[in-house]
Amino acid sequence: MRRFIVGVMGQGEGAEELALAQACELGALIAGEGWIVLSGGRDSGVMRAVNQGAKQVSGSLTLGILPSSMIAPGPDIDIVVVTDMHNARNNINVLSSDVVVACGSAGAGTVSEIALALKAEKPVVLLSPDSEAQALFMKLGNGRVYVSNTPVETVAIIKKTFFSSGL
Amino acid sequence: MRRFIVGVMGQGEGAEELALAQACELGALIAGEGWIVLSGGRDSGVMRAVNQGAKQVSGSLTLGILPSSMIAPGPDIDIVVVTDMHNARNNINVLSSDVVVACGSAGAGTVSEIALALKAEKPVVLLSPDSEAQALFMKLGNGRVYVSNTPVETVAIIKKTFFSSGL
Amino acid sequence: MRRFIVGVMGQGEGAEELALAQACELGALIAGEGWIVLSGGRDSGVMRAVNQGAKQVSGSLTLGILPSSMIAPGPDIDIVVVTDMHNARNNINVLSSDVVVACGSAGAGTVSEIALALKAEKPVVLLSPDSEAQALFMKLGNGRVYVSNTPVETVAIIKKTFFSSGL
Amino acid sequence: MRRFIVGVMGQGEGAEELALAQACELGALIAGEGWIVLSGGRDSGVMRAVNQGAKQVSGSLTLGILPSSMIAPGPDIDIVVVTDMHNARNNINVLSSDVVVACGSAGAGTVSEIALALKAEKPVVLLSPDSEAQALFMKLGNGRVYVSNTPVETVAIIKKTFFSSGL
Repeated sequence: MRRFIVGVMGQGEGAEELALAQACELGALIAGEGWIVLSGGRDSGVMRAVNQGAKQVSGSLTLGILPSSMIAPGPDIDIVVVTDMHNARNNINVLSSDVVVACGSAGAGTVSEIALALKAEKPVVLLSPDSEAQALFMKLGNGRVYVSNTPVETVAIIKKTFFSSGL
Repeated sequence: MRRFIVGVMGQGEGAEELALAQACELGALIAGEGWIVLSGGRDSGVMRAVNQGAKQVSGSLTLGILPSSMIAPGPDIDIVVVTDMHNARNNINVLSSDVVVACGSAGAGTVSEIALALKAEKPVVLLSPDSEAQALFMKLGNGRVYVSNTPVETVAIIKKTFFSSGL
Repeated sequence: MRRFIVGVMGQGEGAEELALAQACELGALIAGEGWIVLSGGRDSGVMRAVNQGAKQVSGSLTLGILPSSMIAPGPDIDIVVVTDMHNARNNINVLSSDVVVACGSAGAGTVSEIALALKAEKPVVLLSPDSEAQALFMKLGNGRVYVSNTPVETVAIIKKTFFSSGL
Repeated sequence: MRRFIVGVMGQGEGAEELALAQACELGALIAGEGWIVLSGGRDSGVMRAVNQGAKQVSGSLTLGILPSSMIAPGPDIDIVVVTDMHNARNNINVLSSDVVVACGSAGAGTVSEIALALKAEKPVVLLSPDSEAQALFMKLGNGRVYVSNTPVETVAIIKKTFFSSGL
């Protein structure tokens, strides 16, 4: 049966300390819900941290969508999908996610993913203090963009958006 | 830790009865080894059968690489990767597989996958009575193409190719 | 010999009147320089207008990168490249352009193209009054993002960036 | 107005002398008809030869679909489309061609292109002595695969298939 997938996007080399800590916590929380963590697959920054967090949880499952067969995946990724499409794989990241979370200040790659997620009518959570990205995407989001301050709040938003029918 | 992935390719609508039965058995055998079954994700033919077989095994994991967000995945697929790249997703199928098995007579889509697998230097097992495909790919395969008659033999070939070091 | 290509991006259905007029003028100016106009290939909005403008110039050449084989290209496109990759073709748009111009208010698709252009280290001209997009991309652009008010100014920026060595 | 495009596929490094000579002649004949030559864009083998032939004709136009931004295009290509999709760009090659010609013995890449062309219901001309490829693709081709012995015969087949209505 199709599993629920949360895509977590963020910077590789340029990620801030806070973003790394939040990605790690978020990975653990997503895994704790029984959801799959999807990331860009590289062994760097937010991608590495979210998978590290997820694999602290027993029974977790991590999915990495690698840009290139020449790039090694992170060690905490269970299922590696190799695209050899470089940045065009960003569209696969968002199409394969039920919801997309941008973690930390958005670099150009993450901005492309948020934009492609909106094109695909996916909900997006900005776990990010990046005021310029917030301003642009709140304007473009048609009610699908949420701003969050913590990993706990991020998961609460996802639960409310997708699983609130019983409340 | 990265899991071992076996890609099983074959026709959707045009698959023969034998191919469907072999795909189902092969899916169960792959899952029984603890390997992940990768397929093209659609609810048809060899793709459907291999996932049905795999999900008869407790703890199995199935990965489907869908060509389009407009196409529903098969019900036995756990992890759905949506590409929206149509037949270009065939390259992702083979790049993400450690080994590619072609099950049944090869249609044009399967032929493209075998060829792309050889471009990517992946081993290919032809579980197929298709003599024209065998002739072409044995010539092109540089020793990477194996012909198999049954699912059991297919799994034996994979084990010998990848896991024989201790024998 | 490889021709110089200017990619012009902008909204399809949602484009404003000013953006359409500027796209048409810009297409004519690009063609007048002997450069090729690249667009997303659809018969709508900025894509249609920039090709209409270009084809008013004798000897012009227009290149359209279509998202899908199910979508008809605009009638003013000379060379149609069909990708069947939907929004992932946005990356091909920018990789194939020497410079990317965003014309009019940026929708999610255009935002993804600007971001992917910056990932690919292409220069970007924002012929756009969109203050939120300007704020985000000037921050991310590393000196590669220019803001322009008119098609004439846009072409002047391109000439200065690429062809000023003899001045 | 949309121009007619002939895709010419064949080996890079492994191409035989005859294939190179035929590709060069074919490029000149295609250009002489006013059609655009599409190739995989690299500066090697059949790709290089077909563009060399085409550029001997005044007013010719050559289009190359490059697999990677890290690979230099051939010097005789006028319009370079950069995909960064590696072998997945083979699908764009065939989708963008009105007809696909395979020139010389088919390597794995060319086999993938012929197969993807048939998936896309494009006509294919095998200007190739490769009996294994002929056997497989004549079987799969549903009447869309033609075998040709010379560049002149290849162009005659294309003219008859696409432009014979007035004869």
